[in-house]
Amino acid sequence: MNELIEKGKKARQASYLMANLSTTVKDKALQAIAEALISNEKKILEANRIDLECAKKKGISGALLDRLTLNTNRIASMAEGVLQIKGLPDPVGEVVSMWTRPNGLTIGQKRVPLGVIGIIYEARPNVTVDAACLCLKAGNVVILRGGSEAINSNTTIVEIMNTAALEAGLPEGCINLIEDTRRETAVEMMKLNKYIDVLIPRGGAGLIQTVVNNSTVPVIETGVGNCHVYVDSDCDLQMAEDIIVNAKTSRPGVCNAAETLLVNREIAEEFLPRALNRLKQLNVEIRGCEEVRKIYPDALPATEEDWSTEYLDYILAVKVVDSIDEAIEHINEYGTRHSEAIVTNNYAHSQQFLKQVDAAAVYVNASTRFTDGFEFGFGAEIGISTQKLHARGPMGLKELTTIKYIVYGNGQIR
Amino acid sequence: MNELIEKGKKARQASYLMANLSTTVKDKALQAIAEALISNEKKILEANRIDLECAKKKGISGALLDRLTLNTNRIASMAEGVLQIKGLPDPVGEVVSMWTRPNGLTIGQKRVPLGVIGIIYEARPNVTVDAACLCLKAGNVVILRGGSEAINSNTTIVEIMNTAALEAGLPEGCINLIEDTRRETAVEMMKLNKYIDVLIPRGGAGLIQTVVNNSTVPVIETGVGNCHVYVDSDCDLQMAEDIIVNAKTSRPGVCNAAETLLVNREIAEEFLPRALNRLKQLNVEIRGCEEVRKIYPDALPATEEDWSTEYLDYILAVKVVDSIDEAIEHINEYGTRHSEAIVTNNYAHSQQFLKQVDAAAVYVNASTRFTDGFEFGFGAEIGISTQKLHARGPMGLKELTTIKYIVYGNGQIR
Repeated sequence: MNELIEKGKKARQASYLMANLSTTVKDKALQAIAEALISNEKKILEANRIDLECAKKKGISGALLDRLTLNTNRIASMAEGVLQIKGLPDPVGEVVSMWTRPNGLTIGQKRVPLGVIGIIYEARPNVTVDAACLCLKAGNVVILRGGSEAINSNTTIVEIMNTAALEAGLPEGCINLIEDTRRETAVEMMKLNKYIDVLIPRGGAGLIQTVVNNSTVPVIETGVGNCHVYVDSDCDLQMAEDIIVNAKTSRPGVCNAAETLLVNREIAEEFLPRALNRLKQLNVEIRGCEEVRKIYPDALPATEEDWSTEYLDYILAVKVVDSIDEAIEHINEYGTRHSEAIVTNNYAHSQQFLKQVDAAAVYVNASTRFTDGFEFGFGAEIGISTQKLHARGPMGLKELTTIKYIVYGNGQIR
Repeated sequence: MNELIEKGKKARQASYLMANLSTTVKDKALQAIAEALISNEKKILEANRIDLECAKKKGISGALLDRLTLNTNRIASMAEGVLQIKGLPDPVGEVVSMWTRPNGLTIGQKRVPLGVIGIIYEARPNVTVDAACLCLKAGNVVILRGGSEAINSNTTIVEIMNTAALEAGLPEGCINLIEDTRRETAVEMMKLNKYIDVLIPRGGAGLIQTVVNNSTVPVIETGVGNCHVYVDSDCDLQMAEDIIVNAKTSRPGVCNAAETLLVNREIAEEFLPRALNRLKQLNVEIRGCEEVRKIYPDALPATEEDWSTEYLDYILAVKVVDSIDEAIEHINEYGTRHSEAIVTNNYAHSQQFLKQVDAAAVYVNASTRFTDGFEFGFGAEIGISTQKLHARGPMGLKELTTIKYIVYGNGQIR
């Protein structure tokens, strides 16, 4: 029996036990995991060192190598994250609503775990801890499949977590790691409908597209954000400048960063020079439409491709538009339905933007950077959904559950 | 440009307009559609006659031919269905919750349409009307792809609905029918992620499996029901008998009908002869495990395959189990997570069954046949979800919507 099917079966069995554990037991396990991560720091760092050496031999460097790297601080912050998850309210068991039908049947909608959640991600050992503990708190069993470069770190971390979890009373098979990191095994995992209820890919656009294209298991698509800020004709220009600077430069590598600035023609001549100069000073490369380049000749010419690119970098596409209608049309055409913002003083325009823009989060007079589970107050985040089924926007613990109808009768037949 | 992309583009454009229509306009359109169906009865029947002739030439008969057939009564009942949908509350626009963060950002969760819904179904012209009008009432644009045998009926019905809808103020492209009924076109439709937000297959297990296996568009899996009734040791045997007879025979061809009866050993000798005799009188073929056959020799031997078969027919698999634990294990192993029932007088067993059985709807002392949008009080139903993402169990209008975060700021940056 191959590893996937073996672990899938075990995971399914464990999911029935996990689903009915009390919050007390789950929290005890999370506490134990946090403590075990700290007390096994040396072991984790040793495993991580092997991964890092292999990675360097393969020529991996820069941001990729940084994400793979663990150290005392990072392990402490992983453990801290686990304790934060422990502190969150348990979503499982809530009866969302309940009603009685004329025939006497009482029907309730009860919140229950999703069951077995598959997480496919890149070489980031912190995701191993974070994803597993979020799933666990919501009563789910997790099957992790991380990037091959992190395999030693992941194996060690999962071993440590499992030992702690089992001692605290969690069932065997509650945290699973697929140790076979071949690509074809990942594709097989995407078709494991019998044992996996939901797949959540966490990583770059390429990874997510691969999962969406190959998976027969239901997928929650996360993360790709081609986000826009639209500066309306009647607005506070200083506020607009602060918002685009924040949305572009506070952390360019994340999905809620802005990639395109749309500016209403009426204020373009006044707004663009000041805003683009400030962005330039912050090392942002500007790619503008023809009109932008007339006003701000330093801008490089933007091509059609720029409108649909998620740079994740110090690059900003800029376009002058005639009206809010054109702005909304542009966003609905090129956006990825993640986060979109308008800066305006006009009441009707604010309402129109909120209504007509098709995205997970639509902002008036605020930075797109707030689309985040912590910023929204969920206390945690497994990802940001850019699809419309099940969950949209930041996903917290509640989004890792489903409902089940519980029906109380006294002999009703139809 | 091929038909799919052309209609997909039009549908996406129309979806932005549909999403912001008032309930009044949508209801006016539904009223107009209901009236147009009645006043165009002759035209519809003529188109249907052509489909029926072709179908007969192809050798189609029995239930399939019956489902394809329209007549005055059936058209009246289709129109009646549309008026019922018109009468339901509009789910769109509800702000599900709203809160203010410490930084002053006010965040609301607003219910919005899913956007463009694709429906792939078999040769049932009534689904054309029903699915389109449910989608429309929830502010969605629909792309219909029905079975080739119904193409003339469907084309005519969609034309009539579109004319009525447009006159009432709905945007062009709000109801779309894919007229190219080749299989490869259907498969292409399953990968139309740019234009379709959600696919809902409606039909038999084969159709649903094809959609799940081929689709890159998010799918809501509906309908396959291998449902069980478990008769516990301590229970009202008359109630148990009535429930299994109802669950099996009141409408064997539907997904919420029971397919397997599990009986606790303690009452098997008393219960099985009376219940199985009554089922036999109703023409139900019994396939039993060895123990069942000892008690009731008329039963045919059940094979492993019987436990996982959705007969949709007058056939019942019957098994004796040692305990409620064995019953739950059997259900979680072989069930399709649709509807499961226990008949019991034991309080602890009722709670255990409700908790541990993994299904969309779990019943105590009632027939599985109640899993239905109308019986649950939703007033309508687009299908019964057997997956865990987004919707579980009967899906009404609310399940044809998603949420979007609307965020009100006054210059917040992060």
